[in-house]
Amino acid sequence: MSEQLVIHPVAGFYLGATQAKIKKNGKTDLVVIELAPESVTAATFTLNAFCAAPVTVAKQHLQRVTPKALLINSGNANAGTGEQGLHDALESCQWVADELGCSREQVLPFSTGVIGENLPMEKMHLGIAQACANLAITGWEDACAGIMTTDTVPKMISRQIDIGGHSVTLTGISKGSGMIHPNMATMLGFVATDAKITQACLQKCLSDAVRVSFNRITVDGDTSTNDACTLTATQQADMPIIDSVESPEYHQFAEAVKEAMTELAQMIVRDGEGATKFVSVQVEGGKDEKECLQVAHAVALSPLVKTALFASDPNWGRILAAVGRAGLEALDINAIEIYLGDVCIVEKGGRAQSYTEEAGQAVMNETDITILIRLHRGEAAETVWTTDFSYDYVKINAEYRS
Amino acid sequence: MSEQLVIHPVAGFYLGATQAKIKKNGKTDLVVIELAPESVTAATFTLNAFCAAPVTVAKQHLQRVTPKALLINSGNANAGTGEQGLHDALESCQWVADELGCSREQVLPFSTGVIGENLPMEKMHLGIAQACANLAITGWEDACAGIMTTDTVPKMISRQIDIGGHSVTLTGISKGSGMIHPNMATMLGFVATDAKITQACLQKCLSDAVRVSFNRITVDGDTSTNDACTLTATQQADMPIIDSVESPEYHQFAEAVKEAMTELAQMIVRDGEGATKFVSVQVEGGKDEKECLQVAHAVALSPLVKTALFASDPNWGRILAAVGRAGLEALDINAIEIYLGDVCIVEKGGRAQSYTEEAGQAVMNETDITILIRLHRGEAAETVWTTDFSYDYVKINAEYRS
Repeated sequence: MSEQLVIHPVAGFYLGATQAKIKKNGKTDLVVIELAPESVTAATFTLNAFCAAPVTVAKQHLQRVTPKALLINSGNANAGTGEQGLHDALESCQWVADELGCSREQVLPFSTGVIGENLPMEKMHLGIAQACANLAITGWEDACAGIMTTDTVPKMISRQIDIGGHSVTLTGISKGSGMIHPNMATMLGFVATDAKITQACLQKCLSDAVRVSFNRITVDGDTSTNDACTLTATQQADMPIIDSVESPEYHQFAEAVKEAMTELAQMIVRDGEGATKFVSVQVEGGKDEKECLQVAHAVALSPLVKTALFASDPNWGRILAAVGRAGLEALDINAIEIYLGDVCIVEKGGRAQSYTEEAGQAVMNETDITILIRLHRGEAAETVWTTDFSYDYVKINAEYRS
Repeated sequence: MSEQLVIHPVAGFYLGATQAKIKKNGKTDLVVIELAPESVTAATFTLNAFCAAPVTVAKQHLQRVTPKALLINSGNANAGTGEQGLHDALESCQWVADELGCSREQVLPFSTGVIGENLPMEKMHLGIAQACANLAITGWEDACAGIMTTDTVPKMISRQIDIGGHSVTLTGISKGSGMIHPNMATMLGFVATDAKITQACLQKCLSDAVRVSFNRITVDGDTSTNDACTLTATQQADMPIIDSVESPEYHQFAEAVKEAMTELAQMIVRDGEGATKFVSVQVEGGKDEKECLQVAHAVALSPLVKTALFASDPNWGRILAAVGRAGLEALDINAIEIYLGDVCIVEKGGRAQSYTEEAGQAVMNETDITILIRLHRGEAAETVWTTDFSYDYVKINAEYRS
C-alpha cells in the first residue's frame, strides 16, 4: 500500500472490525461485512483437497443463495478440525445472520491463522456482535488490519475508474505473506465495487482475474487449505448494467479488476517473510498456457535458482537446468533464449556469446528482477511472480510454533 | 561407506585415476575404467532436456557399440558448452581409445563439476595418459575419490553374493550430495559385477534398480544435466549365463543390484549439504505408482515440511496440506492416515484423537524419520528419501561461486 493511498468507500459495502482476542497479541481479528440488498458476489477458493471448514461451508452457501454478509476471522484457521470445525463455522454464520436479519446460508465464513485448533466460540460470539455494531462504509482500514496474520504491511488498493462514461469505484484488501508463512500462509482477498453487473459476468471477471494474479504468485509451491478471494458488486453506481462479457464495458471493467487483483497479489509476494527480491518469471513462445506455466514454475520454485537470487549470483546454469527439467516434450534446447533483465544469458544451448558476468551481475544486484525465457515454439506467454530463498525463510519457517 | 568396508575387486574391471588439475584444489579428478573384452554395460541418463555434452555422446556411443572403456572427469561438467562441448567430449574419447586400442565410440564419457566452462583439453589429454598407466582392478578407492566433487564422504558398496550356488561380486561407487549442491549436483554411479548376464537382462536389471533407488531420492527437485549410472558385467564369474528375466538367478541378481543401488543412493541423501535429517516418505494404498509418487514428492519437496523437519517440529498440518495439494483426483481426505514413525498424527481429516505433541516430538527428535501416508484407495506403495532444509542449505547454495 502506498503511503498516499486514498481509500474510496464502496456504496453498499459496510465493514465492521473488532478485537475478539482470537489473536494472542490482542490485535484486530474479526471482521463482518454487510452487503446492500442488490449486491452480487463471486468467489474463488483453494484447490487443496484438504480445504478448511469455512471453505466447505462458504462453497455450499454460495451455491444456494446470494450472500448478504461475509465473516472473516484471523488467528485461527478452523482447518483440520473435522466435524466440529464445520459445526463451528455454521454456528458463527448463524450469529451473523441473527445480527443482520438474514439467513445462515446468506453468510460466507473465512478463517486464517493457526490450524488444528477449534474456533474459540465464545470469543467469536462476542466479536461478531461488536463488529456488527461497527459496520460502516469507511471501515476498510480496520478490516484490512483484521484479516492480517503475519503480514508486515496492510495490503489495499482503491481507485475510481471510468466505465463507458460512468464513474465506478473499486476497492479491495488482501492478506498473505507470499504463501511462505507458517500455518500454510492463507491468502485472502476481498474486493468490492459499486458497478452494476450480473452475477455471471462478475464470476467470469473474478475467475479470469484470479487466474493471472493470485494464481500466478508462488513462493514455495505450498497451497493453503484456506485460500479464498471474493468480488462483490453492490450495483449502486449510476450506470447501465453490464450483462454481456462481449460488451466494451465488460472489458473495461474486467481489465480494471485484473489490474487491481494483480497489484494485491504482488503485494503478497513483496511481503514474503525473508524475501529480499521480487522476481518476475516470464515465459514467451510456448505452445499453450500449460507449458508456459510448467517452465515458469520449474524456474520460480527451484531452490537452486532461488538461493542464487538471494546471493545476487547470475548463475545462468541453474536457470537453464530448471527449464530443462520442466518436462516439455521435444524441447529444442538450441532454440531457447534466456534473459536476465535485458541481458541475454543463454542462447544455442549454452552461455550467450555476448554475455559478460558484469552485465549479469548488474541485473542481479537489483531488488526487482525479471527472468525472461523465450521458447520459440508457439504464441503463448505467461508470467509468475516469486521471491528468493533467504536464511530468514528457513529461520521463520523453522522457528514457528516454538 | 562404513569404516569396515572390504572392497572386492571385480575381475575384468580395471580402474585408473589421476590428478589432472581440472579441480582447483589439486585432488584426484580423472578416472579411466577399462572393461575386459566380454563385458556388457547398461546405463541410464538424466531426463533433463538440457543434457550435457558427455551425456549426448555417451548415449550415441552406447547405441552403436559395446563399450570398452569409461572416462570420468570431475571439476568440469562440460555442460552448457554447445558445439565445442560435443567436440571436446569426442576428442577426449579418442585419446582414451588411442591409449587402450579401441574405437572412439567404444568409450563412454562422463563429466561433473562447474558448468558453462569448456573442458581444459591439455589437462584432459595428459590426465588420460596418466590414468591409463594406473589401470588396476584394485583402483576402486582412487576412482571413488576421482569422481567426487563436493561430497564430504566417499560412497562405495562391495559385496559377494550367491547366485544359484555361484559366488558373484558386486562393487560400486557413487557421487553426489543429495542433488542439492551448487552446479546442479550431478549424481553419478558406476557399478560393476563379474556376473555372466546378457545385455538385455542387465539393462532391465539396472533400469528397475535405478527406478527405486537413484530416482527415489530427492532433496530439492532439481535434476542435473549430467546424471548418469552404469552397470557393467564382466562375465568372468564361474556360472551359467543369466539370459532370462524370468529365471530365479535373475531375480537373485536383480535383488542384490537393487539393494546395492539403494544403499549408494541413500548415501547421497545422507551427504546432502546442510542436511540434518534423513527422511523416508512412504506412501501406501495408492491406486498406482504415479499417484503414490505425486503424494510422496509433494511432501518430500514441500519447503514448509522440510523446514519443520529441520526444526524437529511435529507440524502435522504442513504434511496434511502437502498431501492435499498433490493433485489426486477424488481424494477422500477422511480416509487418509498419516504417521510420524509409529505415531498416528492425522486421521479423519484432522489431528488423530490419540495424538500427543510429546509422542510426535519424540519421533521428530530422531535423525532418521519416517513419514507414512496411507491413502486407502488402492494397492500401490512407493518410498522416496529426502532431507530437511537447513540454514546451511541456503548458505551453501547462496555462497557458491562467490
